[in-house]
Amino acid sequence: MDFAQQLDTYRQRVNLALARALAPLPFQSSPLVEAMEYGALLGGKRLRPFLVYATGEMLHADCAALDVPAAAIECIHAYSLIHDDLPAMDDDSLRRGQPTCHIKFGEDTAILAGDALQTLAFSLLADGPMAGVAPQHRLAMVSELAQASGVAGMCGGQALDLAAEGQQVDLRALEQIHRFKTGALIRAAVRLGALTAGETGRQALPALDSYANAIGLAFQVQDDILDVIGDTAVIGKRQGADQDLGKSTYPALMGLENAQAKAWDLYQESLNALETLAAQSFNTQPLQALASFIIERDK
Amino acid sequence: MDFAQQLDTYRQRVNLALARALAPLPFQSSPLVEAMEYGALLGGKRLRPFLVYATGEMLHADCAALDVPAAAIECIHAYSLIHDDLPAMDDDSLRRGQPTCHIKFGEDTAILAGDALQTLAFSLLADGPMAGVAPQHRLAMVSELAQASGVAGMCGGQALDLAAEGQQVDLRALEQIHRFKTGALIRAAVRLGALTAGETGRQALPALDSYANAIGLAFQVQDDILDVIGDTAVIGKRQGADQDLGKSTYPALMGLENAQAKAWDLYQESLNALETLAAQSFNTQPLQALASFIIERDK
Repeated sequence: MDFAQQLDTYRQRVNLALARALAPLPFQSSPLVEAMEYGALLGGKRLRPFLVYATGEMLHADCAALDVPAAAIECIHAYSLIHDDLPAMDDDSLRRGQPTCHIKFGEDTAILAGDALQTLAFSLLADGPMAGVAPQHRLAMVSELAQASGVAGMCGGQALDLAAEGQQVDLRALEQIHRFKTGALIRAAVRLGALTAGETGRQALPALDSYANAIGLAFQVQDDILDVIGDTAVIGKRQGADQDLGKSTYPALMGLENAQAKAWDLYQESLNALETLAAQSFNTQPLQALASFIIERDK
Repeated sequence: MDFAQQLDTYRQRVNLALARALAPLPFQSSPLVEAMEYGALLGGKRLRPFLVYATGEMLHADCAALDVPAAAIECIHAYSLIHDDLPAMDDDSLRRGQPTCHIKFGEDTAILAGDALQTLAFSLLADGPMAGVAPQHRLAMVSELAQASGVAGMCGGQALDLAAEGQQVDLRALEQIHRFKTGALIRAAVRLGALTAGETGRQALPALDSYANAIGLAFQVQDDILDVIGDTAVIGKRQGADQDLGKSTYPALMGLENAQAKAWDLYQESLNALETLAAQSFNTQPLQALASFIIERDK
């Protein structure tokens, strides 16, 4: 199976898992539940679920059990997008070419839908069907996802980003924003996949952390590069948009060529991190392919 | 110790537990963490933590272990107040006589602070110091709190309340709003206290559910009664405010005397629910005193 097929398989899998998680909720077809469905089910590459599945399967976790952390982490990602798009935050009216949640359902319902999606993530980890995963491993997943989502992770990063608005920040500060705002959840994705695999997975955590830190940052560097060299029609936002807003980006801070070299170095770093796992005969190919995809993508 | 002293003791205890939960977070003295502290530490009777402590101590749980669920449930309550006060929701600029979180810190930070307080609640249940509480019981607490906070609880109730805005609803619908919006979290408070006590606590759950359902609704009925007969200076909002807004209330729907009779019936129901526990020699006195307080209070 090539990477595109694998991405699509996992994408379909997590979409089903999300639909199954939303179906038993009360108030079906209320604006609240419809807004949650809209936020969780509409589009997206599902990179975080890919990381959960690919890491877990590499470490011989049961694929059905991986549906739960994959859906949980996507609930957190979806809630963060709904809240980030609000008028008081980034004030975006379009996402993936569709009206954002608050445009379609109103701000009040969008705030609530984000809140309830965050809750659903923890509900899934506590109660979702994960045969063979011991309570202490489920609890470790709750801990992992909470750490990555709260002040010590995504929310903290979003606060850093808000504080940096309209200011030029240096490379060190830019990297800190990314490590918290998006890096923490990407690291949580591989860790949740590993924790589903029990003891084998726990032993792989240090290598997986290095891998995740490298691809998380590579993703952001490549995003900034695409803003400079990408084709507006392909990247889905106007090329140069970040530059025009005076946002601090890697190309702006270090020059385009250095930014490209940095993305390449991070890619190599991610491959190096996987070597110890490959040496133990784990199939690291899907995680390698994702790393390539991240720095080769044109959108 | 009389009820007022007990309430104050537990209030101080949970305030310390909340401060200890917030202290290790990164970005101390950032607007995000200050807004979380503001929302979580400023005032409030701490009725939910009281229920956690009183129920847990009655069932012989370790008091130090109860700090964790008490703080966790208050984090959920605090996040819900911050988000409910937002301009897109109830648009309140004052709470407990102080500027609401978004007035003091801005809407963006208030949204994030609410989000991060919800996360902190689950982080506490996963990692907070609860010596002697087994992982499966911690996990049951995560499940309990998530159920009570999400679509099947508080968020669902808030959505019902938004949908009922500007409409007259009947008694059945009014009760449903309250059972979801506030009742679910009150029931979760006694259940978290019980779960901290292990097997003894689990056996007490049916009686505690009945108790919690009765006092939760009694609290709302009394709130509505105070809006009609209360003293504006004492209740902290203008007497008659609900009536003027055309909000559906128990006195409006069933008459003042019937509403008072209903509050009394619910009080009796809560005492009856405690009888099976008293018969097993558990000290139900603090929970009885809380039930009296709820229907006797004048604010």
